[in-house]
Amino acid sequence: MINPPLGRKLRMALIGGAGNAFIGPVHATAAQLDHRAELVAGALSSDAEKSRAAAPAMGIAAERSYGSYSELLAAEAALPEDQRIDFVTIATPNDTHFEIARTALQAGFDVVCDKPLTIARDEAEHLARLVSETGQVFALTHNYSGYPMVRQARQMVEAGELGQVQAVRVNYIQGFLCGLKPGEVPARGVWKSDPEKAGSGTLGDIGTHAYQLACYVTGWQPTELSSVIKTFHAERKLEDYGHALIRCREAIGMITFSQITHGRLNDLTLEVDGQDASLVWRQEEPNQLVVRRFGEPAQVFDRNPRAAYTHDLSRAASRLPAAHPEGFFEAFANIYQGVFDHIVANRSGQQFVCDGSKYPTVQDGVAGIKFVQACQASSAADGIWMEL
Amino acid sequence: MINPPLGRKLRMALIGGAGNAFIGPVHATAAQLDHRAELVAGALSSDAEKSRAAAPAMGIAAERSYGSYSELLAAEAALPEDQRIDFVTIATPNDTHFEIARTALQAGFDVVCDKPLTIARDEAEHLARLVSETGQVFALTHNYSGYPMVRQARQMVEAGELGQVQAVRVNYIQGFLCGLKPGEVPARGVWKSDPEKAGSGTLGDIGTHAYQLACYVTGWQPTELSSVIKTFHAERKLEDYGHALIRCREAIGMITFSQITHGRLNDLTLEVDGQDASLVWRQEEPNQLVVRRFGEPAQVFDRNPRAAYTHDLSRAASRLPAAHPEGFFEAFANIYQGVFDHIVANRSGQQFVCDGSKYPTVQDGVAGIKFVQACQASSAADGIWMEL
Amino acid sequence: MINPPLGRKLRMALIGGAGNAFIGPVHATAAQLDHRAELVAGALSSDAEKSRAAAPAMGIAAERSYGSYSELLAAEAALPEDQRIDFVTIATPNDTHFEIARTALQAGFDVVCDKPLTIARDEAEHLARLVSETGQVFALTHNYSGYPMVRQARQMVEAGELGQVQAVRVNYIQGFLCGLKPGEVPARGVWKSDPEKAGSGTLGDIGTHAYQLACYVTGWQPTELSSVIKTFHAERKLEDYGHALIRCREAIGMITFSQITHGRLNDLTLEVDGQDASLVWRQEEPNQLVVRRFGEPAQVFDRNPRAAYTHDLSRAASRLPAAHPEGFFEAFANIYQGVFDHIVANRSGQQFVCDGSKYPTVQDGVAGIKFVQACQASSAADGIWMEL
Amino acid sequence: MINPPLGRKLRMALIGGAGNAFIGPVHATAAQLDHRAELVAGALSSDAEKSRAAAPAMGIAAERSYGSYSELLAAEAALPEDQRIDFVTIATPNDTHFEIARTALQAGFDVVCDKPLTIARDEAEHLARLVSETGQVFALTHNYSGYPMVRQARQMVEAGELGQVQAVRVNYIQGFLCGLKPGEVPARGVWKSDPEKAGSGTLGDIGTHAYQLACYVTGWQPTELSSVIKTFHAERKLEDYGHALIRCREAIGMITFSQITHGRLNDLTLEVDGQDASLVWRQEEPNQLVVRRFGEPAQVFDRNPRAAYTHDLSRAASRLPAAHPEGFFEAFANIYQGVFDHIVANRSGQQFVCDGSKYPTVQDGVAGIKFVQACQASSAADGIWMEL
Repeated sequence: MINPPLGRKLRMALIGGAGNAFIGPVHATAAQLDHRAELVAGALSSDAEKSRAAAPAMGIAAERSYGSYSELLAAEAALPEDQRIDFVTIATPNDTHFEIARTALQAGFDVVCDKPLTIARDEAEHLARLVSETGQVFALTHNYSGYPMVRQARQMVEAGELGQVQAVRVNYIQGFLCGLKPGEVPARGVWKSDPEKAGSGTLGDIGTHAYQLACYVTGWQPTELSSVIKTFHAERKLEDYGHALIRCREAIGMITFSQITHGRLNDLTLEVDGQDASLVWRQEEPNQLVVRRFGEPAQVFDRNPRAAYTHDLSRAASRLPAAHPEGFFEAFANIYQGVFDHIVANRSGQQFVCDGSKYPTVQDGVAGIKFVQACQASSAADGIWMEL
Repeated sequence: MINPPLGRKLRMALIGGAGNAFIGPVHATAAQLDHRAELVAGALSSDAEKSRAAAPAMGIAAERSYGSYSELLAAEAALPEDQRIDFVTIATPNDTHFEIARTALQAGFDVVCDKPLTIARDEAEHLARLVSETGQVFALTHNYSGYPMVRQARQMVEAGELGQVQAVRVNYIQGFLCGLKPGEVPARGVWKSDPEKAGSGTLGDIGTHAYQLACYVTGWQPTELSSVIKTFHAERKLEDYGHALIRCREAIGMITFSQITHGRLNDLTLEVDGQDASLVWRQEEPNQLVVRRFGEPAQVFDRNPRAAYTHDLSRAASRLPAAHPEGFFEAFANIYQGVFDHIVANRSGQQFVCDGSKYPTVQDGVAGIKFVQACQASSAADGIWMEL
Repeated sequence: MINPPLGRKLRMALIGGAGNAFIGPVHATAAQLDHRAELVAGALSSDAEKSRAAAPAMGIAAERSYGSYSELLAAEAALPEDQRIDFVTIATPNDTHFEIARTALQAGFDVVCDKPLTIARDEAEHLARLVSETGQVFALTHNYSGYPMVRQARQMVEAGELGQVQAVRVNYIQGFLCGLKPGEVPARGVWKSDPEKAGSGTLGDIGTHAYQLACYVTGWQPTELSSVIKTFHAERKLEDYGHALIRCREAIGMITFSQITHGRLNDLTLEVDGQDASLVWRQEEPNQLVVRRFGEPAQVFDRNPRAAYTHDLSRAASRLPAAHPEGFFEAFANIYQGVFDHIVANRSGQQFVCDGSKYPTVQDGVAGIKFVQACQASSAADGIWMEL
Repeated sequence: MINPPLGRKLRMALIGGAGNAFIGPVHATAAQLDHRAELVAGALSSDAEKSRAAAPAMGIAAERSYGSYSELLAAEAALPEDQRIDFVTIATPNDTHFEIARTALQAGFDVVCDKPLTIARDEAEHLARLVSETGQVFALTHNYSGYPMVRQARQMVEAGELGQVQAVRVNYIQGFLCGLKPGEVPARGVWKSDPEKAGSGTLGDIGTHAYQLACYVTGWQPTELSSVIKTFHAERKLEDYGHALIRCREAIGMITFSQITHGRLNDLTLEVDGQDASLVWRQEEPNQLVVRRFGEPAQVFDRNPRAAYTHDLSRAASRLPAAHPEGFFEAFANIYQGVFDHIVANRSGQQFVCDGSKYPTVQDGVAGIKFVQACQASSAADGIWMEL
């Protein structure tokens, strides 16, 4: 789509994503899915050689494949306005997010950053200040909040269809660490097991997704938590399992995360208990949402852009008729849709309500790092309650 | 079945179960399902009139319908040995279990008691001592451990098929309190909401089932717990929601219980993470057990007495071929099968290994009351760890 | 229950059921589940020795364990009225049903007969005449129509909640023949593979269940069918797979039956398409019924005796609260409940509306044999339409 | 991806797809998903005005937005080779496929055509001859054969993992016609209800998908069929429901199709019975495949590019790790992947084995029209067997 009123696609640069990385190519596909953006530049690896080698497969021309993020940002900033990139996507190890994001923002580019935002809280808050001061667009790819039925859930809560929310349970259960033999190095994402580069293990990798999902759907801003985290896998230096109990006024939520559960793949489940109804959503069957009320038959809502029951955020996030399954790419692309709407609005002097409903913001990133650090601190103190 | 070598059915008395009580008739049906026992006497209500009125529908003759449990125990004890009851089932409010059970044991009768065992820990331990001293049979109807696929799970763990168990999650989610309008009295089980008579709410009612299930399948004897319990329902004087984190050496388990989740009916789910495999079982689909191993297709085991994969406890607990659904009554009856095996063994001088695998024992009852009280104490102290 | 106004349990005799037979003990358990009947006599095998050996495990006293059905009927008829049996259950090979049923009816006993009714159509019609002339109770255990949610489905159709029914699909898929090695004799039900004794294979064994289920729920009386049946298993002399397309005025139904589908156990599925709604029910998850309407969320109805949505036949067929799974025995027992209601009504001069809603009648048996024979004839003529 | 060895993206033209059409935009997104092709030209409507208006949203430049397909083909053929399109996608009403496809082939362009291929058999065969003579690429978008787990199923069958296939059942159940009020015109796809333009109703729309799926997975080339089709919806001029029984040597298959089943969305289910195993796949849960063997636990295979169990076609068709749901777009894009591989092979003098495993060919189109016409003829003659 030639974004009206701009009359052109947005230009994207990708930092990270070379080799057998998982998430870099996901960003490329998701950002371009709806034909509103074009990947034109990249610094795909911190190794200049690898970076250039990986560019053609991404459709990046040789002359805009850079050897480092700083080179990319400098060169692109120097291009004429009608050629230079509009935004940068950061898909690099956690410990590098801060510097790249800060430099990109200061160079005037909008930013899409993988989660977790940073590994240090002050860095996260620094970025939040920058975003607030400049009004630039900054999105964190908590992609699960991009699913149409998650957005349906949020709007059902918001509209009061569940009544006051009393309790939430989010379980994010994976088992990929079980595939790691003693002494073996993982096939990809090696840095994720390195305390220096990752800052946390399962907490940052998936716990933050679960926490953000709970907050996205309920609108909660939890005030304290109690957590116990564990390291079960013999080769592991970081936590790979845990629970965090969160409080938000009178309500409570339980966040459970595991990467050591054999054969469980990407099993993120959300349960919300409201005073008038409850709901369940599962990432592995993302096109359905189950809502229950006492004494009534359970209702299975399908993602269905034409159904009268569909709320507007859910409708806008659907591309296909019901039961033509949409999945991970589309949800991820919905985050980018929000980002593009905001960028276009900024460029064309329109309003955009940046409340986190269309894409997770830098504030979600700050909340995520607080969550990670509070869990680590609480667990170290045997589960005492920590303020968030 | 005319239990060999006794050559007769066992004779049962039921205490409680009149009116619109749920669990009394379940005991009657479950105990008689396999034709090994016959309900011949009852004190179905603490109101002598109601007790007699309810007897015919249970098939109890007028002359053995008693006005109170003490009357029943005295009269039956006075009957000749070839007429008097063999065992007593106690299906009365929690606070009355102790006195009835103690009296029955002292009168020489074997006992089947509904859970939770008692509302006071010393009472539970008193009963445990009595059972230990006398060698009488004493079973607690944690009926969910009677399901064939739960027994399959236990034996898979025991046989090492899952490797060392690292984590367990048991969720017991109901929503029946949502049906209770402000000021309304529940249709049955009124005493369950009375702190004096129940001792606890959701904890004792379903939390103990979840805890027992975790221990039954894993063989754990947890050493400490941290719990937060809540009362969400406006009319409620007792807890109706909560979490308990349990520790057993290096492993951890999370027990979650709710009776305020709209439209959830009797959703007890067990997940076990072993070093070599994981499993999932759901009470609402009790005839299946899902086992997963990294990199392999998930395996759905059906209750199947003829399959080579079926362990002996599971096989013995099945009455029908696979996919001829068995349910709640059969699981409940499996507890009674264990009780009957033990009674017959005692009467005929045979050995019976009373390890809790065939029916939950008085020790499970002691563990249950410890669990309830530790949860209450931990939650009152904001979740500090309590020894079990 | 001491059936009012009779003031006693009904007395049952079982013919067949010795050895490792499956269905005989099911009858015994189902008939006695609700304490309204007592199994007091039996001719459990056509071998007098085996018959007597099997009696104790069924709780039948030696003096009422007979060497043959004719001996049983004669001896029981000679007993005083307050001792003799009330009804006979026939759980023998198909080819023996007719003689036993006829003799029992002529001896004045009510009859419960396993399906299919007979292997010859004139025999079936003979029995139907007898029943009609005598007014005796005669039930055929198409037990799947005893499930509460099947009864709910029937009453939803009857009440017009689905609008006019346009199409039905019933699939009954099993795979037990796959376990039969070349040359091997099945562990039980050997006669089922013998054309002389069975009359048909998969058609009679499960096809008739599927057909009856379609008719039970829709109220249809199909007028013609077209069928293709196959024998895939190498050892098989009878059909083990097939389809039958049925017509009922403007509507059509497809009945599919297989016993050669690896690993499928007892997978009977019903789908009904009405002008206003559609429904799906699966025997392997019998406590749920899914109803769908265009543009609305799918509704999952649970078996729930207390829910306002539950029709009266479904409510009466439930023994336990929702999500306390009921299964095969309970559904089977519901057929017996209808039989007992009818017997008691007959004995006490009350009316009983024998419309097939509470138990399948001899007319269902006649319809079943017509179905089997029309399928065989149609298939032999390459699928031409046959009148029913 | 800059397709090696071509070193560039392929250039695509889209015919049809303007307005609120469903399938045109799907082609655009699917073809471009993997960055191997670029939509550069279009004749999006048969109305020149509408065609030009719709172009920008598709990212098509004004100068390559044409007023008709003939204009497009002439103008593009006249462009220099390094600018002109490589292939044409036809997403127009059924009755126009033939002329457009023939013209495009004759102009030297490769073709991707929506199904069904044509509405007349001689036209389909004409196209097949043209393709055969020219060696040009011609694909038919039976997109469901693009799902990774469908490809897994095909290769499991091919590798003999199921043994000889004896029976197949494919049900394709939708309910969207139920949303059509009396007298109402559908929101899109109006031509689908016009006998002149569509040639058939539900048969061509979804029956051909079901038939192709059965053949794709089993490798069958059925020789005859018997069918009954019905028109249930009051407003309908074409069939909207039916069954077709197909024969392939000793094996049989049942194809069922409905567009009048309330609330069923896009429920395409495949069941294959082999002598050694059976399988089930559902389009609405496309990332899983269930395989069963007698006496063993059912196996649930997840789409998992890293699992050892994954066959190569399935692996190549996966973009994301297991349980990161892929859906309709990706399956559709897999058809395009096969097309692109073939085009690139043709252009670079490499071999491409065009056996229908990577994309459905013009021969699938011929088979589809034969299927449709045989069903119509069989049903008109009350279900007699028709040769295919």
